[in-house]
Amino acid sequence: MHKGCVIRVGDLGEFGVIRRISGRLPQGSGVILGPGDDAAILEAPDGRVVVSTDLLIEGRHFRRDWSSGYDIGRKAAAQNLSDIVAMGAAPTAIVVGLGLPGEASAEWLDALTDGFRDECALVGATVAGGDIARSDVVVIGVTALGDLGGRRPVTRSGARPGDVVAVAGRLGYAAAGLAFLSARREAAEAGTPDLAEEFVDAHRRPEPPYACGPEAAGLGATAMLDVSDGLLQDAGHIAAASGVRIVLDPEALPVPEAMARLAGELGADPLNWVLTGGEDHALAATFPPDVSLPPSWRVIGQVSEAAGEAKAEVTGRAETSGGWDHFRE
Amino acid sequence: MHKGCVIRVGDLGEFGVIRRISGRLPQGSGVILGPGDDAAILEAPDGRVVVSTDLLIEGRHFRRDWSSGYDIGRKAAAQNLSDIVAMGAAPTAIVVGLGLPGEASAEWLDALTDGFRDECALVGATVAGGDIARSDVVVIGVTALGDLGGRRPVTRSGARPGDVVAVAGRLGYAAAGLAFLSARREAAEAGTPDLAEEFVDAHRRPEPPYACGPEAAGLGATAMLDVSDGLLQDAGHIAAASGVRIVLDPEALPVPEAMARLAGELGADPLNWVLTGGEDHALAATFPPDVSLPPSWRVIGQVSEAAGEAKAEVTGRAETSGGWDHFRE
Repeated sequence: MHKGCVIRVGDLGEFGVIRRISGRLPQGSGVILGPGDDAAILEAPDGRVVVSTDLLIEGRHFRRDWSSGYDIGRKAAAQNLSDIVAMGAAPTAIVVGLGLPGEASAEWLDALTDGFRDECALVGATVAGGDIARSDVVVIGVTALGDLGGRRPVTRSGARPGDVVAVAGRLGYAAAGLAFLSARREAAEAGTPDLAEEFVDAHRRPEPPYACGPEAAGLGATAMLDVSDGLLQDAGHIAAASGVRIVLDPEALPVPEAMARLAGELGADPLNWVLTGGEDHALAATFPPDVSLPPSWRVIGQVSEAAGEAKAEVTGRAETSGGWDHFRE
Repeated sequence: MHKGCVIRVGDLGEFGVIRRISGRLPQGSGVILGPGDDAAILEAPDGRVVVSTDLLIEGRHFRRDWSSGYDIGRKAAAQNLSDIVAMGAAPTAIVVGLGLPGEASAEWLDALTDGFRDECALVGATVAGGDIARSDVVVIGVTALGDLGGRRPVTRSGARPGDVVAVAGRLGYAAAGLAFLSARREAAEAGTPDLAEEFVDAHRRPEPPYACGPEAAGLGATAMLDVSDGLLQDAGHIAAASGVRIVLDPEALPVPEAMARLAGELGADPLNWVLTGGEDHALAATFPPDVSLPPSWRVIGQVSEAAGEAKAEVTGRAETSGGWDHFRE
């Protein structure tokens, strides 16, 4: 125990950490066997299971001085749950591999755990198991599982010429918040001005439109993905997988007034945030042209025959399918 | 491209790395949708899915100077596949989150990938998906999934007084190899003497007795786990979860002559390796006393009523349920 009565995870030991985490987590109705054994057992009533994994590393995907433990937990879970709904499935559970520095406080770990729990609760999922290890920086490996409930999965490869392209959820918000934090580190530490607050919050904690994934599957979406590399690049992924051309209409892309004002302050192009920002976890999908879309979906482009290279582009802009490479420095 | 034509993963970029990995991996018959979309889709014919995750971090769980990329891939997969068979299930697939330093060579990555592939092939599983990220050290998050094939899962909590305790697989081999490598770093670099080779190999690449997991479930095992914290501590986990006392017979614990000789060279107690070594991924299980066990299982102890604290002990030795805390420095 250190002075000031701060409990460090290094003081708790492996089983102490596991007990502390497990004690904060409810077990879901679809969890047959939760944490504490070699493996968890989940119901898979559909007879198929959808699975996606992501690895988040401190200093690359998040910073402990820019985001709270709670927000990091919410975001790490959101990122994976979003991948599951992007297939048209309902998330059932996540398992988490956690690398922790010994000096991390137990209080921070509690907040992280609560973040996982609360984000999962939004979709009726729970944390079914995990593993912890000692690490110099915080490492979070989240694997999410989901059930298709009898639905046909919506992959990236089914877009057809004539389809419309639509998005659900926010675009560019997290990128705007990150741009603000990067440009104004000192200001951020002294408090965030009102203008940027909404966007900084969006960077810290995405709000994926979870219900829209299964909804799109039910509406007959021909292709769908979670926008994680930026809209233009991800539309390019659909184009490449489907062998089609996608043209996005910049007039249809939502640039809220507050975002335009923040961009003005920072000397940035807000449409660039909308086209290349990837952390909002919006959903992009293609639908047959005769589908009547509910208000949660906004039509932003068209699918046509690939004349030459299958790619995505924006009317009136030169760049095509560019975006974020998670692997670059 | 760097001089000497060594391709670094930093040169390949995210999609180059993903293409390179995917190109080396066959897709399994139970994989409905493999890598390349937001999520993979696997068959789950049992209607339940077994899932386990582990996080391995360079410098703590493996060293690139002590193990090849191939061996690290084999070991990372083995560790998780073993957790699945320890429930009595058949592994179907793994997904892998991979953190890579930019300076890692593409050749090393190929070897790692082949290691995942070949270890999975031993149990009929494949790599169904993954994620890559930039990291200062190699980070490997493996999540394995499995199918119970209609069998009742074998948890840690079903041991009953009167049951026998049995193990399948090797005990103490990896610990002996690690002790040798730790004591004789220079000798290891100059080549491993014959005496230690078998054990160093066991440290680098475990050989879990995969078939014995579903076999034990079929034989009516009342409790089972994968020995990953050391036999004594893991027997203690069964004792605690089941509310029983477990007594192990040191005479029944296999200490091969070569291990005894290596222990003599290093001034170590070989029974300590057998009781506390955790990386061989042996299976420990309890069975009703009337079960006729096949030769793959060796009876090593007895289950009795817990008189006071539910724990495991070894006849004639003072320590109880001690072992490895993965979280300590």
